[in-house]
Amino acid sequence: MYLRELKEKKEEFLNQEVKLSGWIRNHRRQKDFGFIDFSDGTDFLHMQLVYDREIADFEKISSLKNGVSIEVVGILQESSGAGQDYEVAIKKVTLLGDCPDDYPLQPKPHTKEFFRTIGYLRPRANLFQAVFRIRSLASMAIHEYFQSRGYIYLHAPLITGSDCEGAGEMFQVTTLPLEKLKGEVDYKKDFFGKKAGLTVSGQLQGETFAMAFSKIYTFGPTFRAEDSNTKTHAAEFWMIEPEVAFCDLNGIMDIQEDMLKYIVQTVLEKAKEELKFLDRFEEKGLIEKLTNLVNSKFTRITHEEVINILKNADVKWEFEPAYGEDIAKEHEKYITEYFKGPVFITNWPKDIKAFYMKQNSDGKTVAAADLEIPGVGELMGGSQREEDYDKLITRMQELSMDPKEMEWYLNLRKYGTCVHSGFGMGFERLLIYLTGVDNIRDVIPFPRTPRNCEF
Amino acid sequence: MYLRELKEKKEEFLNQEVKLSGWIRNHRRQKDFGFIDFSDGTDFLHMQLVYDREIADFEKISSLKNGVSIEVVGILQESSGAGQDYEVAIKKVTLLGDCPDDYPLQPKPHTKEFFRTIGYLRPRANLFQAVFRIRSLASMAIHEYFQSRGYIYLHAPLITGSDCEGAGEMFQVTTLPLEKLKGEVDYKKDFFGKKAGLTVSGQLQGETFAMAFSKIYTFGPTFRAEDSNTKTHAAEFWMIEPEVAFCDLNGIMDIQEDMLKYIVQTVLEKAKEELKFLDRFEEKGLIEKLTNLVNSKFTRITHEEVINILKNADVKWEFEPAYGEDIAKEHEKYITEYFKGPVFITNWPKDIKAFYMKQNSDGKTVAAADLEIPGVGELMGGSQREEDYDKLITRMQELSMDPKEMEWYLNLRKYGTCVHSGFGMGFERLLIYLTGVDNIRDVIPFPRTPRNCEF
Repeated sequence: MYLRELKEKKEEFLNQEVKLSGWIRNHRRQKDFGFIDFSDGTDFLHMQLVYDREIADFEKISSLKNGVSIEVVGILQESSGAGQDYEVAIKKVTLLGDCPDDYPLQPKPHTKEFFRTIGYLRPRANLFQAVFRIRSLASMAIHEYFQSRGYIYLHAPLITGSDCEGAGEMFQVTTLPLEKLKGEVDYKKDFFGKKAGLTVSGQLQGETFAMAFSKIYTFGPTFRAEDSNTKTHAAEFWMIEPEVAFCDLNGIMDIQEDMLKYIVQTVLEKAKEELKFLDRFEEKGLIEKLTNLVNSKFTRITHEEVINILKNADVKWEFEPAYGEDIAKEHEKYITEYFKGPVFITNWPKDIKAFYMKQNSDGKTVAAADLEIPGVGELMGGSQREEDYDKLITRMQELSMDPKEMEWYLNLRKYGTCVHSGFGMGFERLLIYLTGVDNIRDVIPFPRTPRNCEF
Repeated sequence: MYLRELKEKKEEFLNQEVKLSGWIRNHRRQKDFGFIDFSDGTDFLHMQLVYDREIADFEKISSLKNGVSIEVVGILQESSGAGQDYEVAIKKVTLLGDCPDDYPLQPKPHTKEFFRTIGYLRPRANLFQAVFRIRSLASMAIHEYFQSRGYIYLHAPLITGSDCEGAGEMFQVTTLPLEKLKGEVDYKKDFFGKKAGLTVSGQLQGETFAMAFSKIYTFGPTFRAEDSNTKTHAAEFWMIEPEVAFCDLNGIMDIQEDMLKYIVQTVLEKAKEELKFLDRFEEKGLIEKLTNLVNSKFTRITHEEVINILKNADVKWEFEPAYGEDIAKEHEKYITEYFKGPVFITNWPKDIKAFYMKQNSDGKTVAAADLEIPGVGELMGGSQREEDYDKLITRMQELSMDPKEMEWYLNLRKYGTCVHSGFGMGFERLLIYLTGVDNIRDVIPFPRTPRNCEF
C-alpha cells in the first residue's frame, strides 16, 4: 500500500496490520527504541515508524541507514508524539535497497546550489517534494480550468521553420554533420529541407485553432537561446497560451484574472501541507499572499496613466519613467504597491510591442495588457490581435518583416477574420509565485541554462 | 454566447432570443428561404440558422459566403428538419469577417493530402474538428487517470546532453553559427558548453522522480530524427511515460490495461458525436471496436510461446518467426487475431531489448512487455527496470556503453534502489486507434516529418 492510500483510509486501517514500501528519510536511534521517518513520496507528510527492544530484529532495524528502501509490516496506531496523529508500530522490516554512508542527501541543511549538483536526488528532499508536487497540482488545475470551460487543448509544434516570431533568440535544430560543414550551408540537405529551430511561442498556431474552435489553449515547452544567467531565465520552460475568438482585450483580462484565481485557490485547497512548509522555510506569509490574491480585485489602468503616477511619485528613479517607453522593475514594484494588488497595464505604446497586436484608433498604442503581480512583476502578457489584413501587413512592412513568410498567418485575416485575443503565462514564473522559491532553477525538474544541461 | 453553452442550456433558451458568433460552414439558398450551417467550433454539432423572405435583409443574408464570420441574433426554436432538434430563426445578422470565393475550404470532399497543404485551415473541417477534439479529450483523460490516482506529473527535459538513451537518432540543438564552422567543432562555445540534442525519451529522468514520489508520469513531446516517411512516423510526437516504484512487470501491465480502458471509456462517453462521424467516414465499426476493448480481457503470453504459436500456424510467413528475434507486423496481426483481443507479449530476448530492462533469471530474457492491439500493432512498450547496480553496469559494458556517462542513472541503484517498472505510450498511435484515422500526419496539429516543417 502507498501512503496516500493509507491516509485516505486511515480510519479503516486503525489498529490493523499494514504493509508499506518506501525510504528511510531520517532515523533517530535511542538505546531501547527508535523512530524512523519514512516516506514513499505519495504524500507530503511522512509516516513515523516506531520500534523498541521487544522486537526480535532490534539490532538489525536499528542499523538501517538514511536513504535505504524498506518494506515494513506493522500496526497503524494513534501517535502520542508531537507532529503526527498516526504512526506505525513495526512488526517486521525487510531491507530492499541499501544506501552507503556517503549518500549525499543526509538530513541536514543543504543549500539550493548544492541540491542543483544532485538534481537526480533532490526530488527526495522536502523542499522539492513540496515544489514538484505543487508543479503537478498546478498543471492539473490549468487543464481543469480550460477543459471544464470547453477549451480545446492544442499541442503546438516545437520545431518550427519560421523565425519571424520575433520573441527572442532561437536554438537551431539540425541533423547536418557539424564537423563536415565548410562555410556555406545547404539546408536542402537538412532534415526538414530548410533551416529549423525551437519555437519561442505557440501563439501563431494557437490563432489558427482559435479560428476553428473559438476557445483553445496550449500548455507546452518553449525555448529561448538567451545567454542570460538570471533567477528568472531558463533556456527551456513551459508556457500556457490561451487564444479566444470573439473576445476583446477586456474579455481576455476577465479570463486571465479568473484563471489565476482558480489555480491559486486550487493549490491552496490541495497543497495545504506543502504550503505550510514553504510558508515556514521559503517565504514567510506565502499563504496569506495567495489568499489575498484570490480575494483581490485586479486593477486595470493604461500605460499612460501608469507613467503619470510614476512621474508624480516622490521617488528617485534609477530609470526615469517615460511615455512611449517600457517600464522598469522598480516601476512594476511601485505600481503593484500603489494599488495594493495585481494590476493590468493596458494600451501600450505600439513601438515597444509585437507586430500582431491590435492597433488602437489613437495611432500610437496597441490593445495589449501586461499583468503585474505584487512581488513577482510581470506574470502574463496578453493582447487583442490585429484582425485587419491590411493593417497587419502594413505594420509588418514598417518592421521590415516579409509578409510572404507569414502568408498562412495573414490569411487568417482573409478567411472569416474576427476579433480575438490571447495571452501567455510562463508556468515557472507562476510557480515562483506559488511556492515562494525565487530561482527558476529550483522549480524546474531538470533546468537548462547557459552552459548547463545536466541529467 | 458560445454554442457549447447554448447546448447545455437549451431548455432554458428555447423560444428565447440568443446571440451567437461564429462561421458559416455551408449555406444552402432557396428562392424564398435559406439554411445556414453555422459553427463556432465549441461543439462538434453545428447549429442550423434559418431565414426567409419576411426578413428585411433577405438579399444581404442570402449573399453571405461560406467561411465568413458573423454575429447572429435569433430565436432558438425546435426544428422540424432532419438532422437537428433545434435551430435558430434569424432576426439579424452582422457580417464580421468576409471570405473570398477562392476560400480553399469549400464544402465538398477533399483528400487528406490536400488538407495537409492547408494545415492552418484544416482544423475548421469536420474531420479535424473531430480528431483534434478527441486529441484534447484524450489528453485530459490521461491527466485525470494519473492525477486521481496520486501520480506526480513530471515535465521531463527536452534538451539533453546525454546521447546514450539509444532509442533512436537525435536532432542536434545548437547556437553555433553553422556558416562559420570549419571542420572541428568546439562545443565549449555552444550554448550548453557541450553537444546537446532533443530527447527521445523522458524515462531515465522519470526513474529519478519515481525514486522520490513512487508514482509519476510524463506527458510531453519527444523527437526522432529518423528519415522514414511512413504513416506512423513523425519527427515530433507526444509520449506518456509513467514510472512506478515498488511495482513489478505484472503490476505495470495491470496499470497499462486499466489506463487504456479508462481513456477509451472516457472518449466513448465524451465524444459520442465525433465517434459517430468517424465511424461513418473513417473506420466502419470504430465504436464497436472501442467498446469491445473496454470489455476485453488482455492476454499475457511470453515471447517464446508466441513463437511457438506462430511456428505452428498454417501460414506462409514473409518473415519466418524465430526464438530470440523480434516479431514482424504480420506476426503481431496474427497473434491479436488468434487471441481475439489485446495481447501483452512478455519476457523478450534480452539482445533485442534496451539495456535498462530487468534481466530474468534464465539469463536469456528480460522482464519486458509489448502491448499488441488488434488493428494497430504495438501500442505500448513497458518493462521492469534492472534495479541491481552490478547487473546494470555489466550489461552496459556488454553493449559498449560508457557507465561514466550515466553515473547519475546508475546511482539510483546505489541509493535505496527498489523494484520499479514503467512503460511508454506514443500518444499519436493511441489517437490513430481512437479515431480510425490511419496517418500520423492527420492526428497531429502541425506534423513535422522529413522535409516538412510547415506552419
